[in-house]
Amino acid sequence: MNRYPKELLETLTANLAHAAGMTSGDARLFAEALVSADLHGVSTHGLSRLSIYLRRITLGLIEPQAELRVERQRGGTMVLDAGNGVGHVQAIKALDLLIPLAGQNGIAAATIRNSQHFGSVSYYCNRAAARGCILLATTNCEPAMSPTGGYDAFFGTNPIAASFPTGKGFPIKIDLSTSAIARGNIIAASKKKQPIPLGWALDSDGAPTTDAEKALLGTVLTMAGHKGYALALMVELLSGVLSGAAIGPEVGSMYKNLDRKQDVGHFFCLLSIDAFMDRAEFIQRVDALIDKLKAGRKMAGTDEILIPGERSARVAAENARIGIPVGPETWKELADWCTKLQVEPPALQEAGKNI
Amino acid sequence: MNRYPKELLETLTANLAHAAGMTSGDARLFAEALVSADLHGVSTHGLSRLSIYLRRITLGLIEPQAELRVERQRGGTMVLDAGNGVGHVQAIKALDLLIPLAGQNGIAAATIRNSQHFGSVSYYCNRAAARGCILLATTNCEPAMSPTGGYDAFFGTNPIAASFPTGKGFPIKIDLSTSAIARGNIIAASKKKQPIPLGWALDSDGAPTTDAEKALLGTVLTMAGHKGYALALMVELLSGVLSGAAIGPEVGSMYKNLDRKQDVGHFFCLLSIDAFMDRAEFIQRVDALIDKLKAGRKMAGTDEILIPGERSARVAAENARIGIPVGPETWKELADWCTKLQVEPPALQEAGKNI
Repeated sequence: MNRYPKELLETLTANLAHAAGMTSGDARLFAEALVSADLHGVSTHGLSRLSIYLRRITLGLIEPQAELRVERQRGGTMVLDAGNGVGHVQAIKALDLLIPLAGQNGIAAATIRNSQHFGSVSYYCNRAAARGCILLATTNCEPAMSPTGGYDAFFGTNPIAASFPTGKGFPIKIDLSTSAIARGNIIAASKKKQPIPLGWALDSDGAPTTDAEKALLGTVLTMAGHKGYALALMVELLSGVLSGAAIGPEVGSMYKNLDRKQDVGHFFCLLSIDAFMDRAEFIQRVDALIDKLKAGRKMAGTDEILIPGERSARVAAENARIGIPVGPETWKELADWCTKLQVEPPALQEAGKNI
Repeated sequence: MNRYPKELLETLTANLAHAAGMTSGDARLFAEALVSADLHGVSTHGLSRLSIYLRRITLGLIEPQAELRVERQRGGTMVLDAGNGVGHVQAIKALDLLIPLAGQNGIAAATIRNSQHFGSVSYYCNRAAARGCILLATTNCEPAMSPTGGYDAFFGTNPIAASFPTGKGFPIKIDLSTSAIARGNIIAASKKKQPIPLGWALDSDGAPTTDAEKALLGTVLTMAGHKGYALALMVELLSGVLSGAAIGPEVGSMYKNLDRKQDVGHFFCLLSIDAFMDRAEFIQRVDALIDKLKAGRKMAGTDEILIPGERSARVAAENARIGIPVGPETWKELADWCTKLQVEPPALQEAGKNI
């Protein structure tokens, strides 16, 4: 695996996205959002997805220059139609509409329908935190997860995310799927021919399984049993039902449904901190909370009590310094897209450092 | 255990609360909120807590006639100070302020500081759902739960709740603590001298334990490991930090700290459904989601896929018909309070039916 400078990866991504049909400005927004996932160590939501986004754009399944349309507005709320555009770009533009609205109104919320998989939800939350706001964000996703007692793939892994500014050099970042485990862990176990713990997945007959192969043909379980089911349903109601997007099993699969759009729905609720409390006081209270958490007694084997977002901020700082790792398979995909879209590839030998 | 008519229990509660110093109107609001928990089968949050609320009022630790003060307002947001009043009453009054605001503005949010344990969060969410709104509600609570890797009781069981109207005769009710288990289950195991599963609790030295006695001296674990920690922290940031209330371990214990107030904080975010979508269309979409969930394939041993809120609605209908069960210990406490506060007790023999 080689490491590459952030700017190189962003430029490569932006050039590919622009060549696929996005405006250069939107391509840049998209590239920053995408590469940010790799920067923060979340490679499952970064460049490894670029190929499928480009594929869906070139197949006409994503509209690369879609407008973000305000369909309805009342006070602090907006109903947005993403026009089947690129999820990352439409989410950033939605946030750009919400930030001034939350400034005036204290709070602003939007539903966004007719969108796509938009990568790492915390990217948008962290953007908001940098502007003195708290973004609570949810999205539905392609079906993968069963309700308690059932074994149809009904819900997506329906994440819940929110970030909070701190004075510690990183935002507190809450970003979790409501599934027991990411499907990627089951794929990894399957490749290594290892069993998986009970409680991760059901096989295709709805029986709990420790066999990774069988689990991949079945469905993922919710985190914490019925509690995860309840939260996944809450996410579906806010993101899918209230937005007018596809709901549950109707959401298109990014990889499997290469004949139709995804129609993913997002829900954004943005709080302007200073509507509630002077920002400096808020930061001071957050920092005191962090200090107290970190000073607590530790279980045997625990060196440090970590704050959600702390580890990924450390990874991002390290990757910014020594380069962002990109696996050879992903790099090969990008090189192929450079050929297909006639984009000049970066000088790999110079750009990459062996690690 | 006897069963009693809802009206009888509400009148008894209201009379006791009024005798303890609440206005008769507020006492009625309080009684309805409290008895609603028992009605829905959540006896841990209903009449079994009346004694401690009355005790704290009579000790001067709760201000029975506190005003709910609007400290700051901008657009759709309000910063509220509950004046150390009765949590249930202040939460209902906060909701009464938010409902018209969400009507005009599409969305409204409030932080509420200087409050108390306010019973079952879903009571307020269900009230909002009956008015065509979605209430997302969180509250911090007295410390009971450790962050991942730690073993100090830092967070409360910090619940997340939201209700959604349906056309099915019950609201979808999401209401879950972010702990692996309610402490009540550990108490129950301890009484029966039974072990508890690993993953519920730590002992007082921070070691995972299956010994219920030891667990009661230690702390409860978060649900789903670090995911529950992240959600508990999110709840703390919204309810405790942003509101100006006590934070984490500073929240007073209802039972243990009989020398100081609790200073609990709540966070309410209220969405007016028709700002996003015509209400009839929303209900139709929710109902279609419910129908599809219930029609899904079921695991062996599962008779029915239940919707969150469905079971408790059935319990409430049954209890409304045949009476609400109240345990003998709770009934004895209420009888003692009748004596103490010179409230005429209901004619028990006539009121209660043996079950």
